[in-house]
Amino acid sequence: MTMGRRLLEDIESDGGDSIQTDVPNRRHSPCIDYNIPATNAEEDMEPIFAVNQRSKEASQYESLDYDVCENVLWRRDQTKIEPKFAVKKDFSRWVISLQIGVFTALVACCINIVIEEVSRVKYGFLKKQVDVNVVHGDLSIPYLWWSLLNLVPVVIGATLVAYVEPVAAGSGIPLVKCYLNGVKVPRIVRIKTLAVKAVGVATSVIGGLAGGKEGPMIHCGAVIAAGISQGKSTTFRRDLKILKHFRDDHEKRDFVVSGAAAGVAAAFGAPIGGILFSLEEAASFWNQSLIWRTFFASIISSFTLNIILSAYHGLSSFRYRGLFNLGEFEPLPFEYFELPIFMLMGVVGGCSGAVWNALNSRLNAFRAHAIQPRWAKVLEAAFVAVLGATFACMMAYTINDCRPLGNDPTEDPVQLFCQDNEYNAAAALWFQTPEATVKALFHDPPGSHKILTLAVFVLIYYPLSCVTYGLSVSLGIFIPTLLIGAAWGRLTASFVVLAFPASSAFVAPGKYALIGAAAQLGGVVRMTLSLSVILLETTGNIGFILPIMLTLMCAKWSGDYFNEGIYDTQIRASGVPMLPWHVEPEFQQLSARHIMAQPVVCVRMEEKVQYLLSILKNTTHNGFPVIEDGDDGSRVNGRLVGLILRSQLVVILKRSYYQEASRFWESTVSIEAFRDEYPRYPAVDDLHVNEDKCSGEFSVNMHMFMNPSPYSVEEGTSVPRLFQLFRALGLRHLVVVSSENRVRGIITRIDFQKHH
Amino acid sequence: MTMGRRLLEDIESDGGDSIQTDVPNRRHSPCIDYNIPATNAEEDMEPIFAVNQRSKEASQYESLDYDVCENVLWRRDQTKIEPKFAVKKDFSRWVISLQIGVFTALVACCINIVIEEVSRVKYGFLKKQVDVNVVHGDLSIPYLWWSLLNLVPVVIGATLVAYVEPVAAGSGIPLVKCYLNGVKVPRIVRIKTLAVKAVGVATSVIGGLAGGKEGPMIHCGAVIAAGISQGKSTTFRRDLKILKHFRDDHEKRDFVVSGAAAGVAAAFGAPIGGILFSLEEAASFWNQSLIWRTFFASIISSFTLNIILSAYHGLSSFRYRGLFNLGEFEPLPFEYFELPIFMLMGVVGGCSGAVWNALNSRLNAFRAHAIQPRWAKVLEAAFVAVLGATFACMMAYTINDCRPLGNDPTEDPVQLFCQDNEYNAAAALWFQTPEATVKALFHDPPGSHKILTLAVFVLIYYPLSCVTYGLSVSLGIFIPTLLIGAAWGRLTASFVVLAFPASSAFVAPGKYALIGAAAQLGGVVRMTLSLSVILLETTGNIGFILPIMLTLMCAKWSGDYFNEGIYDTQIRASGVPMLPWHVEPEFQQLSARHIMAQPVVCVRMEEKVQYLLSILKNTTHNGFPVIEDGDDGSRVNGRLVGLILRSQLVVILKRSYYQEASRFWESTVSIEAFRDEYPRYPAVDDLHVNEDKCSGEFSVNMHMFMNPSPYSVEEGTSVPRLFQLFRALGLRHLVVVSSENRVRGIITRIDFQKHH
Repeated sequence: MTMGRRLLEDIESDGGDSIQTDVPNRRHSPCIDYNIPATNAEEDMEPIFAVNQRSKEASQYESLDYDVCENVLWRRDQTKIEPKFAVKKDFSRWVISLQIGVFTALVACCINIVIEEVSRVKYGFLKKQVDVNVVHGDLSIPYLWWSLLNLVPVVIGATLVAYVEPVAAGSGIPLVKCYLNGVKVPRIVRIKTLAVKAVGVATSVIGGLAGGKEGPMIHCGAVIAAGISQGKSTTFRRDLKILKHFRDDHEKRDFVVSGAAAGVAAAFGAPIGGILFSLEEAASFWNQSLIWRTFFASIISSFTLNIILSAYHGLSSFRYRGLFNLGEFEPLPFEYFELPIFMLMGVVGGCSGAVWNALNSRLNAFRAHAIQPRWAKVLEAAFVAVLGATFACMMAYTINDCRPLGNDPTEDPVQLFCQDNEYNAAAALWFQTPEATVKALFHDPPGSHKILTLAVFVLIYYPLSCVTYGLSVSLGIFIPTLLIGAAWGRLTASFVVLAFPASSAFVAPGKYALIGAAAQLGGVVRMTLSLSVILLETTGNIGFILPIMLTLMCAKWSGDYFNEGIYDTQIRASGVPMLPWHVEPEFQQLSARHIMAQPVVCVRMEEKVQYLLSILKNTTHNGFPVIEDGDDGSRVNGRLVGLILRSQLVVILKRSYYQEASRFWESTVSIEAFRDEYPRYPAVDDLHVNEDKCSGEFSVNMHMFMNPSPYSVEEGTSVPRLFQLFRALGLRHLVVVSSENRVRGIITRIDFQKHH
Repeated sequence: MTMGRRLLEDIESDGGDSIQTDVPNRRHSPCIDYNIPATNAEEDMEPIFAVNQRSKEASQYESLDYDVCENVLWRRDQTKIEPKFAVKKDFSRWVISLQIGVFTALVACCINIVIEEVSRVKYGFLKKQVDVNVVHGDLSIPYLWWSLLNLVPVVIGATLVAYVEPVAAGSGIPLVKCYLNGVKVPRIVRIKTLAVKAVGVATSVIGGLAGGKEGPMIHCGAVIAAGISQGKSTTFRRDLKILKHFRDDHEKRDFVVSGAAAGVAAAFGAPIGGILFSLEEAASFWNQSLIWRTFFASIISSFTLNIILSAYHGLSSFRYRGLFNLGEFEPLPFEYFELPIFMLMGVVGGCSGAVWNALNSRLNAFRAHAIQPRWAKVLEAAFVAVLGATFACMMAYTINDCRPLGNDPTEDPVQLFCQDNEYNAAAALWFQTPEATVKALFHDPPGSHKILTLAVFVLIYYPLSCVTYGLSVSLGIFIPTLLIGAAWGRLTASFVVLAFPASSAFVAPGKYALIGAAAQLGGVVRMTLSLSVILLETTGNIGFILPIMLTLMCAKWSGDYFNEGIYDTQIRASGVPMLPWHVEPEFQQLSARHIMAQPVVCVRMEEKVQYLLSILKNTTHNGFPVIEDGDDGSRVNGRLVGLILRSQLVVILKRSYYQEASRFWESTVSIEAFRDEYPRYPAVDDLHVNEDKCSGEFSVNMHMFMNPSPYSVEEGTSVPRLFQLFRALGLRHLVVVSSENRVRGIITRIDFQKHH
């Protein structure tokens, strides 16, 4: 009965001893069955368990272990570490941050250049087709070409996403957000996901879908960070045998924060915006050194991007305005009385964004059960791609918005039915990537578009982008949302000038387009701080930061009145148990005992292999409290002495051997073993049980492996209080105990879900 | 023995019941001696304790209670709250943030305008004196005038600081940092401090000391935030009876974060820099809604500043470039090969900053024991003020750096011994506020200064600023450090052009001045992210962000090799127990039992008043674990059931009455009572004990007041692990228990101090 306790005390005194690092004859408890096998004894050993080839996915959403498991193995490992090692480890963190920045920028450059080049060829070809065919008056051939050129890339992208890696669909920002919140979303940081995402986003943008490449780039940054920091790839079965000390969820997650920031920095050329994005929207845990490394990764990322794109565009210096990829504004003066207009636009943007979110989430809810087969998803994407071409052609052919050539910012101005020295402004909106159109709306001189053109464009693009976001393709919503906002912002400017002709002196349409874009994007994603910095950095217009900030705050307030931002809406719809910043109001009055899961499956300090196998197979729990026996000798009501994870138990069982010669059960489980298996631990069903060897008498002793000081709370603790603990420390399991430290229940993140 | 336990269970079931908010006959345990006295019984009551007038300071550095004490009173208060109240509370948080922004900007404007106006008069007068006297060749009169005009304001400021509020000395940033880290630094957020700080900084800058107004403005913002959020002032003995729900350390600290950010926003006109400053340097706790409120306060602050200064400068619109108070740069192109130069300058700045920090901290250590009387401090400040005038005059009179008038950015160009259409560039460096000189060094055309002038200036200003920081005056180090850096940056540009004459095409001295300023400031304060944004926002030069970032990273790395940033150095020297981001390496291998304080003074659930008085008087502990009796009936080895604070005990005792009629001991202590006493709780010596009434039989029952679920850890828990808990949750006390939940020790922030 008291053996477990005694063992624990052994450990503890061991932990105490371990301050002196070089004790030559380390004292071992004789009852500890952990021993590193002598090499010559290896032949005698037969595996009790062998791993089957088929690997089974664990339950869908687990928590990451942000909390470091300080078990005896870990403590011993720490004592072996020389003082220099901490410096080395910190240095390699900086080197990894550098690599994250460089590689994220490289991927972003590739995506960028591919999209730019292919789009140029595509729209050049289409323009020729239109020019040739408009003479005969037959516009169906360019339409068919356009549809085809939309269709082919979109089908490729959608097929990849639907058949190869469904998790690469959408922008990826919600997934990254969940990951950084501590949810282990399966497969989101794998190399395969990165490949599908990168190819997918290029094909979608080339295919003319109403989406942008920014969100996916952020996801790409996150995957790159997770990959580089681990020094191995499970997909390629390569283990570089380096960076082993970063193979735990805690370290990996810190790098993913940097990766996401580097992604934003590369996507928008906004290094500060990148950090703020990670801070405001993505990360749940921060500390000063993480801020500095993230900052470094962001700098390096935008720096690399700048160099490469400067070189690509043949500039001899850093003159590439990649930093301002929405076009640099001239200083924009604004008047006092314009501020209420901007704030009103913010409110409009907030409401319009809220409607967009509501429509999109209903549509996606419908889609989730109506369009389930993979081919149907591809078909749907293909349909939307053709729909885009159709709308574009209809608008270009029917609206006769002719403008003189010359101050025209489009690369391929289409003449259509206009005079010889004119181009069709309606067509110009569609004859380029959405990003280029945003730039055009920001910077085209006043009077570049008819009111009708812009109004029709908004009316088409708003539902189109709403339908597009949620297709089985990789696409972000930043650019289409900016586009909608820029269009109605420009429209607003036109109306203001119509109403007060005197105001045309200062009502620059580009200024209103920028405010409209900010308002609409703020209304959809509900970010404020990072968005204003991103807009600042992409337009280079620092003097205009105050109006943008005010607009964004108004957009956020008015949008929040109706619903949540699109990312949170998506996360909620997907059922991922993300922890909010504060506990939901309905939990306010509850105590630990009201929400804890019970009865708890506990294990003894020294536990029979048979029992371990049975609980691993018959439950889905990922953590088991380790207890001293209760008063009645059962596992119920025992006193908490530690916590052991499913993954640890499986690794222990997998790596343990029964030694024939000595009739002693031995284990080769070192801390390296756990690092080698990370992050894809074998499933219990994959362990082949050698029934002969594994009779009831063999048992595993937990004390080397368990976390000897799991966080626990007394059962009367209020939920807001324990939630704070759970969230601040990024816990996976929180054990609920009585005032005598006896296990009463266990709390995991799903216990904080609303429907509880 | 088991009574305490039974009481606890009563509370807990009470807590459970309290979910139903409107139970008409709330069940009370008969053994609870908490009762609201009937009004007609009041005459019968005599106070057991009365408060003496003299209030004694508590021990010097306590922790703030960031953790909310969820006792029964609090829980009852929560159940009474209507759902609407949460919305109201949140709304008032926003309103307070608005007020923080507005008032911080107002104070900043006042300081700004006073300094600007008085300095204009001062330097105008001095110029006239020089012009008149240079004709006779007698320059001693202007020197004496100058010394006098430096002396008078500095003596006023130093006297205020030395005699009225010594805590207002220096920049205030280290104090704010400590406060936000959770250290209750006495008097730092009082109105008196604000007044002394504001007057002090104006006088110091007017007095020509080598300091800036930025740091103090940040402190002012923090005080304003703390004041506005409380709805009462102890100094003025006014209680507006509003905002009572914000009267705890947690809420107050959140507002102080916003205040500090608003202060930066107002000081530099850098709203984003303000948030990042709070994030990187100041705040230890963050959540999303706090970010947004802080952002809002920053916007409002720079917005208000902009409006007021625009109006003051007679501009009809927001054309005031207050946003770029270091002068807006034209776009600065840079070449590839300049980057290594910038990085090298960063390294130089880092080293030079490290030397500055080392010198300054030694000087201040010497100062701390050599200059203790108040009059000596004033005298010292006066001496340094005259010293500044002396150096300035010596430099102006001896260096004959004549430049043609015309492209001269100084308001009062002094001719001195120059030709009629020339001015003395050496004198120009001194004939204005340091801020204006920084601006001049950034923007003066190439060739505005001789190499000698700049070199001498750096050699004088470097030690001068080092001596100045640490005087008994309110002054920041941002501006003098920028000034030193800008001067040697410009010097570098001159040398580069000398070495490679061909490079004069792109080696703009202003660019190198900016890089030098960034390097020097980065080397002294070791901020990266916030500093680059502040420099970005104050110079409006977003295209130059990459070089600035690289420079700052290099400055930080090289400086960190030698010592800590100046703020951390100061904090360490002052002995304030600030919690670092990570535990010190020497704690790495320790467990809770190695650092905990023991034996612990515990109290029983129902405790005799005599005993409480004795422990309050004879110990300095601020928190006492509440226990069930131990096995032997003593207070040793008891089982932990709660935690009660010294402040709570004192308030309970102060507000308790012995009721003659019923011979029953009654208490009027409600949650309001604690809020009314916050934050200056009476000291125990101030309680007048009525010995007759307070015989041994009377006891206090803790269960209404104690925190029923204090955070505790098992004694084997490793220090890094419990440090994480302590820091992440901002704890004040962490109880160490055995595996049976018996109190073994207690950990507070001083136990993490290095000298332990």
